Amino acid sequence: MKRILLRVAYDGTDFHGWQFQPGVRTVEGELNNAITLLTGKETEVTGASRTDAGVHAMGNVAVFDTEATVPPERFAQALNTYLPEDVKVRSSEEVPADFHPRKVRCRKVYEYRIYCDRMPDPLRRRECWQVPVKMDVDKMRKAASYLVGTNDFAGFCSVHTQAESTVRTIYSIDITEGAPADGGQQIAIRICGNGFLYNMVRIIAGTLAEVGSGKHEPEWVLEALKSADRTKSGPTAPPQGLTLCEISYFPETEAVYPWV
Amino acid sequence: MKRILLRVAYDGTDFHGWQFQPGVRTVEGELNNAITLLTGKETEVTGASRTDAGVHAMGNVAVFDTEATVPPERFAQALNTYLPEDVKVRSSEEVPADFHPRKVRCRKVYEYRIYCDRMPDPLRRRECWQVPVKMDVDKMRKAASYLVGTNDFAGFCSVHTQAESTVRTIYSIDITEGAPADGGQQIAIRICGNGFLYNMVRIIAGTLAEVGSGKHEPEWVLEALKSADRTKSGPTAPPQGLTLCEISYFPETEAVYPWV
Repeated sequence: MKRILLRVAYDGTDFHGWQFQPGVRTVEGELNNAITLLTGKETEVTGASRTDAGVHAMGNVAVFDTEATVPPERFAQALNTYLPEDVKVRSSEEVPADFHPRKVRCRKVYEYRIYCDRMPDPLRRRECWQVPVKMDVDKMRKAASYLVGTNDFAGFCSVHTQAESTVRTIYSIDITEGAPADGGQQIAIRICGNGFLYNMVRIIAGTLAEVGSGKHEPEWVLEALKSADRTKSGPTAPPQGLTLCEISYFPETEAVYPWV
Repeated sequence: MKRILLRVAYDGTDFHGWQFQPGVRTVEGELNNAITLLTGKETEVTGASRTDAGVHAMGNVAVFDTEATVPPERFAQALNTYLPEDVKVRSSEEVPADFHPRKVRCRKVYEYRIYCDRMPDPLRRRECWQVPVKMDVDKMRKAASYLVGTNDFAGFCSVHTQAESTVRTIYSIDITEGAPADGGQQIAIRICGNGFLYNMVRIIAGTLAEVGSGKHEPEWVLEALKSADRTKSGPTAPPQGLTLCEISYFPETEAVYPWV
């Protein structure tokens, strides 16, 4: 029996999110189905991050156990022949039998994209939050700087969170701005942290957008953080702007997780 | 009666191309429908470029005549409320009553995108041609340089072309290369010219890809051009990589077309 880790990319637009639900299209459901078809044995994956409907991924992680004799690195290509075009495995590898993708320390990178233009752009509608006003990116960067570090993010998670602690560490928030040839302003908020509460990245994006559009000053974000009160931060930005880019697992000890 | 020019953006994935056909979804059909609903009068647009199924646009052009009293610049926003999310009008303006978008000199800019990676990326499948090998972009640039200028492009158009002359002028071909954080190689071929034959940009992209992947040397493209023989150039690259970015109309005389 081997435990296989998959790095999974998907366009979340036409999925009811990651988590398996009977009767609807989910990323987990498609992966379970492909593995079962490939190996001939009913199999269920365990995911690292149960993304919401509409949220995308370049590098979500899933593990499963199998007795199939396929070489570990070959699962990616083999599974892709059974997967629909909006979800694909980017790579596969063997991990220790006790590896659990939600119970190991990790670093996650998310990107949230905003497209600012007076008119909507059909080509960006699936992967950007489209807003009709330009943003002041320098003010957004100032506001974001208050969120970096180890903080109680109770003011930046949905009230339905099941997390025991709302303390998390954000390592960095980088905000880049592009001016595409076709006009408009393309903003990417790239956030790296050691874990995120429910809706946390989307609430951060929605809060930074309030600063970028001039509704609030950057210091308002510091107050919202200190308050630990969800009603003091900004709205939850819509799911289509969000992509889970990467999950890297830290070795607890080098000996136990030598593949990192 | 006013003649209104629309600049139209669309995600071509779910359309049977631009040109109206009864019973299927077309960009022209959606525009006719929206204008008819807005103005209360059955209206048909005339398009500048009848793009194929799967091809996208940021700035295709359509004109129509109307007696509606909507100010010309307001048609964009007003029509967008009647249009589906995968086609939107980016701007609108009044043009002279004799303006015909296919019978005036113009400059068109197309972009063809190729994503090169061993594994497919679901998030790029609608807007890139995905190939499993990396490309030598310098060789592609060398090959492209042979195509710039005024040439007979008979070897670079589909045999079904209805054009009387196959001579066209390409002003520039710029090839840029990106290395996204998620791996792979993202290539954009941006072509500016005074008009393009049927499938010409897709054949140029398919031909340059043969050079980029090492199947042919750059000079092979010069030979294909000189031969004026479709069987000597490369394959027609798939539609989803292609976007019609922009159409600019040249004034025949400054006095007649003062809006340019």
